[in-house]
Amino acid sequence: MLKVSDISEFDLINRLEHVLKKGATGIPGSYIETAIGDDAAVILPINSTQVVTTDTMVEDVHFKCDTTTMVELGWKAIAVNYSDIAAMGCLPIYSVITLGLKPDQFVQDIEDIYKGFTKISNSYGGEVVGGDVVKSDTFFISVTVVGQSSSGNILKRNNAKVGDLIGITGHIGCSSAGLEVLQYSNPMDMETQKHLIKAHNTPKPKLHDGQILASHGIKTAMDISDGLINDLKKICESSGVGAQIKTQDLPIDEHLKRAFPERHLEFAVSGGEDYELLFTGSEETIRSLKDQLKIEFNLIGSIHEGDPKVTVIDSEGAILDINEGGWDHFSSGKVT
Amino acid sequence: MLKVSDISEFDLINRLEHVLKKGATGIPGSYIETAIGDDAAVILPINSTQVVTTDTMVEDVHFKCDTTTMVELGWKAIAVNYSDIAAMGCLPIYSVITLGLKPDQFVQDIEDIYKGFTKISNSYGGEVVGGDVVKSDTFFISVTVVGQSSSGNILKRNNAKVGDLIGITGHIGCSSAGLEVLQYSNPMDMETQKHLIKAHNTPKPKLHDGQILASHGIKTAMDISDGLINDLKKICESSGVGAQIKTQDLPIDEHLKRAFPERHLEFAVSGGEDYELLFTGSEETIRSLKDQLKIEFNLIGSIHEGDPKVTVIDSEGAILDINEGGWDHFSSGKVT
Repeated sequence: MLKVSDISEFDLINRLEHVLKKGATGIPGSYIETAIGDDAAVILPINSTQVVTTDTMVEDVHFKCDTTTMVELGWKAIAVNYSDIAAMGCLPIYSVITLGLKPDQFVQDIEDIYKGFTKISNSYGGEVVGGDVVKSDTFFISVTVVGQSSSGNILKRNNAKVGDLIGITGHIGCSSAGLEVLQYSNPMDMETQKHLIKAHNTPKPKLHDGQILASHGIKTAMDISDGLINDLKKICESSGVGAQIKTQDLPIDEHLKRAFPERHLEFAVSGGEDYELLFTGSEETIRSLKDQLKIEFNLIGSIHEGDPKVTVIDSEGAILDINEGGWDHFSSGKVT
Repeated sequence: MLKVSDISEFDLINRLEHVLKKGATGIPGSYIETAIGDDAAVILPINSTQVVTTDTMVEDVHFKCDTTTMVELGWKAIAVNYSDIAAMGCLPIYSVITLGLKPDQFVQDIEDIYKGFTKISNSYGGEVVGGDVVKSDTFFISVTVVGQSSSGNILKRNNAKVGDLIGITGHIGCSSAGLEVLQYSNPMDMETQKHLIKAHNTPKPKLHDGQILASHGIKTAMDISDGLINDLKKICESSGVGAQIKTQDLPIDEHLKRAFPERHLEFAVSGGEDYELLFTGSEETIRSLKDQLKIEFNLIGSIHEGDPKVTVIDSEGAILDINEGGWDHFSSGKVT
């Protein structure tokens, strides 16, 4: 099979551009004037507030090539960035992508990564307008996404108020359980296994949910990438408040409970990469949101005065002493 | 000395943010509402055409840590992107930056890279609004820059017309000669050595020149990063024209001629990373540009009908057979 070192950088870029063009369905982004092929891509004026985020995935730190397909990897590399855009209450407009490639990687694999890019663009919008391909002894994918707000209401981390309720979209814990399943042998039925691995390898950015939150008066949100407690603590620190959550209210799905009857709570509070939206709002705003029935969410606790920390209450009403764990790459060396 | 693995990712990001804030002079970018500290940075509406570019530098592929300071490295990582923005006739607004760091790198070095970022931002504008720091076995810096056009005239590669003259700003060849000096021992005076190394390690993005070209009716430009012939060939391919240049008209400075009396031409035509602007325009437009005396440039040849290739004529009027050389990372493995 053809390797990256067998063809020129320009040939490779031409092939990847071809994958993008071939995979595109529907109309191209109306803001894009020129994409690949010049010193820079050209974007028409954007008359609304923009947001920009960047997130990089490194082999053997954020993913392993034997536990994901290359199409899934492409999907996820963009999905984790779209999740940040969703958490701001915005929609993606365009992305630029850098691939750090080892010379012995297969060209077909790189094309598959690009198929993953077109797949998620076709599902959630946004367009890959450019990038860079560099030689590297470590395989990595770096994505930058620019998004925009349609409501004008940008969701931030520093707006949580005392008395706010804490909400969370979807379910949590499945992604980190999926990583566990991929790394170690765990006896469980095929359907459950597939469900957990899917949560880990092809997360769905909650762009629709972010739009609903922003248009219904929510002011505070972030996405859960480093684990519920770690991320809620960031909202507390930014807003200068404390938070209390109850384990019995955490949205943990039946698959996860069945697969890990003893550990599902651990995955839900300390696991990462859920890419659900964590948000706060006044009782009134939350009630109005609930009445609309437009998104699936659960209330898991409330914001109160005090030090910026997260208190976890178990089903007996006792305070749980939970190691924050988390996803700190350098000091723990934990693969995330 | 403190290493990256001695502190948490969050501590490191806090330190880097501190370097940015401390180094900032003058007013912050008027388009930036929120920079570091949320899921995404927030940018106010930009009512003009935008351009976006991304460029990554990998250790031992694009730089070596023993031939550059970390402050210079930070400068260059942004400069090469600003050069693309300049080549579009635009100015930078904001950047996002990803660092791939080895756990044993010194925190002080990473802070110095950020000092390089503030240094170039203070000289040329634009603001670092966010980024990502990831663990990697290979040290790399990936930069994405968004810029905007003030004139509305975006300089492209595909506008060269038969009869156009070919211009080039500044001087070429010094950067690749500087790389040679850094890699091998070459007897020469200190001042010349310093001049060549400076051209390689801290290139100046020609943002002002790009502005002048765009506001004086030039339509075609690109920056020289892969070497004059390689890059001029790209203009030919995009525009469907041929080009002819004369070696006697190439702007080669005295330092380079003195240091490499036999090889200066080779550096000028095939060397890379000059980051000067290569442009074409009608005789009339070029004459008017020359009359304004606002930028330093030289005419090196002309555009004609024919295959998209570059013909080089020597001082005797003979066609030179020049190996295109170039900077193709994968197939040649050449360090660029």
